[in-house]
Amino acid sequence: MATAIHKQVFPAKRLEAFGAAALKALGLPEGDAALCAARMIDADLRGVDTHGIFRLNHYSQRIQANGINLHPKVHTVRENAVTALVDGDNAMGHVVMNFAAELAIRKAAESGLAWVGTFNGNHAGAGAVYSSMPMAHDMIGMYMTVANANHMAPWGGVELILGTNPISVAIPAGEEPPIVLDIATTMTSYGKVKLAAQKGESIPVGWMIDRQGQPLTDPKRSSEGFLLPIGGYKGYGLNVVIGMLAGVLNGAAFGRNVVDFNKDVASVNNSGHMIMAMRVDNFQPVEAFKREMDRVIREIRESRRMEGVERIWLPGEMEHERVRERRKHGIPLAPIVVANLRQLAVELDLSDRLE
Amino acid sequence: MATAIHKQVFPAKRLEAFGAAALKALGLPEGDAALCAARMIDADLRGVDTHGIFRLNHYSQRIQANGINLHPKVHTVRENAVTALVDGDNAMGHVVMNFAAELAIRKAAESGLAWVGTFNGNHAGAGAVYSSMPMAHDMIGMYMTVANANHMAPWGGVELILGTNPISVAIPAGEEPPIVLDIATTMTSYGKVKLAAQKGESIPVGWMIDRQGQPLTDPKRSSEGFLLPIGGYKGYGLNVVIGMLAGVLNGAAFGRNVVDFNKDVASVNNSGHMIMAMRVDNFQPVEAFKREMDRVIREIRESRRMEGVERIWLPGEMEHERVRERRKHGIPLAPIVVANLRQLAVELDLSDRLE
Repeated sequence: MATAIHKQVFPAKRLEAFGAAALKALGLPEGDAALCAARMIDADLRGVDTHGIFRLNHYSQRIQANGINLHPKVHTVRENAVTALVDGDNAMGHVVMNFAAELAIRKAAESGLAWVGTFNGNHAGAGAVYSSMPMAHDMIGMYMTVANANHMAPWGGVELILGTNPISVAIPAGEEPPIVLDIATTMTSYGKVKLAAQKGESIPVGWMIDRQGQPLTDPKRSSEGFLLPIGGYKGYGLNVVIGMLAGVLNGAAFGRNVVDFNKDVASVNNSGHMIMAMRVDNFQPVEAFKREMDRVIREIRESRRMEGVERIWLPGEMEHERVRERRKHGIPLAPIVVANLRQLAVELDLSDRLE
Repeated sequence: MATAIHKQVFPAKRLEAFGAAALKALGLPEGDAALCAARMIDADLRGVDTHGIFRLNHYSQRIQANGINLHPKVHTVRENAVTALVDGDNAMGHVVMNFAAELAIRKAAESGLAWVGTFNGNHAGAGAVYSSMPMAHDMIGMYMTVANANHMAPWGGVELILGTNPISVAIPAGEEPPIVLDIATTMTSYGKVKLAAQKGESIPVGWMIDRQGQPLTDPKRSSEGFLLPIGGYKGYGLNVVIGMLAGVLNGAAFGRNVVDFNKDVASVNNSGHMIMAMRVDNFQPVEAFKREMDRVIREIRESRRMEGVERIWLPGEMEHERVRERRKHGIPLAPIVVANLRQLAVELDLSDRLE
């Protein structure tokens, strides 16, 4: 890509260390700061650039506005052998979700299956980061969350009371990269629309409609319309169901009581998430399952391609390659992201840590 | 609808009794015959006309071709407190899924949560029928299956190795109808394409593409193309993940080893399904949860509508109204369906049972 020339590349370790140092300087305990930075860099390594270190400036604003509890007591309020409801105590979202994922894994290791819901959390970065955690234990992972801003209307409606509510599912394989799906239930993100507006480009038919239901292709008019769900009423339904499973079930925000975290950095988000972990060997011996996964993955990848298509990708395969590449060659950041991080570094007297 | 005039309406109870009598005449044990007919009529009541009594002729063909084990031993081959793998022993799909759903409910009643996978099953009708079963016990239900024919290609591919792989999620509410999502991960079903071809109508851009990736809008050319997933690569990914969770994990068919059940009525399908049941009171007191569900349901329904839209529907709400209406006024069947059922009735010497 032409834009890649302008990007500055940072070793993952350096970015992670900077993120940890910045969060510590902002008041987070050292362990939590390191954990948040690690989960952010996990997203950057996967290529989910919108959910990694790019968010540090925003998190910093929220922390400085007292929008985050720096010394939280993340704890379970209801619990049995296979489920738990976790009160995130308004901690950094990464801290809450890391706690929930580890708890789900422990319970599933013991019982075979576990579902952990959280409330009173915050934006936790990329879903795939958490759904992938159970895979190290030969488990399948599933993650859903209520997005932290509403840019979609109900099907047939015009009021922005739904978010991009994403779902992520991770399934281990053998020699092949694991299957890791991570999708918003909207056709695109609001971030991509804003990016197109900045670049002066139009957006494709199908991404947004206006209040009359007409296609909206000028991203500068985005405030006059809303994002479309995948598959029309189907994606709307999936979106609502995810919001109920990750939000309503946990006593977390959904619908009108979602706080737009971009516009309001101080109010408690009460962000809701869920994570499920399930041992593969409930159903098949691990090695047999992984062999069969490899077989079907290869069957799909090696099936006949459309003319002009170089490769058929499996869910998460591109991200898997990007992790290898970025671990080796570093993480490229857009100039605006670098400028923002540099500014934060100056504010926190950490300029030497970013060079 | 104009076509409704031509439809003949049958009381649900009469159709169910006819279905049970027909399946018994075809050799099914009385209990299984009644159970299959009940699950089929559940689909018809919801308005999922393609997955109810309409299928009886096809099931009959399969039974007569020895494609179904009439005296199966449906049993668990792996099991713990919260998961089970069920061998359907090539029984009628409804028998297998009913067994699996009841098992999941029993386990979840005891432990809070359960996931049951099945293999060696068959087409089981409408997913919502099974995902809804846990709701009577104040549980959330989730169902996925590998479709019994492949009409979709991988993203970027041209080979038909993926089906419509659907997902259904059911969440109880209080005074409001429950939320019941039931969606294929393709933009439409192959059945709807065939119907358009019969009627001489064109199909919308976005339903199918041809092998060059161009929109295919003439349904008579459907064999030259394939169904599109919802949301492009997103729905493709969701489709694959559902196939792995309902198929590969259970040792059931997925990909090229799916038998096209329309073209081949004799071969073993090895159809795979999964069902999850989870108690709401793991997370919230049941009544409080239901009140909150009612509140968010009303918030969505009563939000501002687009001009010309009469009502905003929640997932499963239309089907809920249809159940009430069809219980009261009967189930309308298209002339071709009635003709096929009449023919089957004659074959089985059951003509008096259909009038």
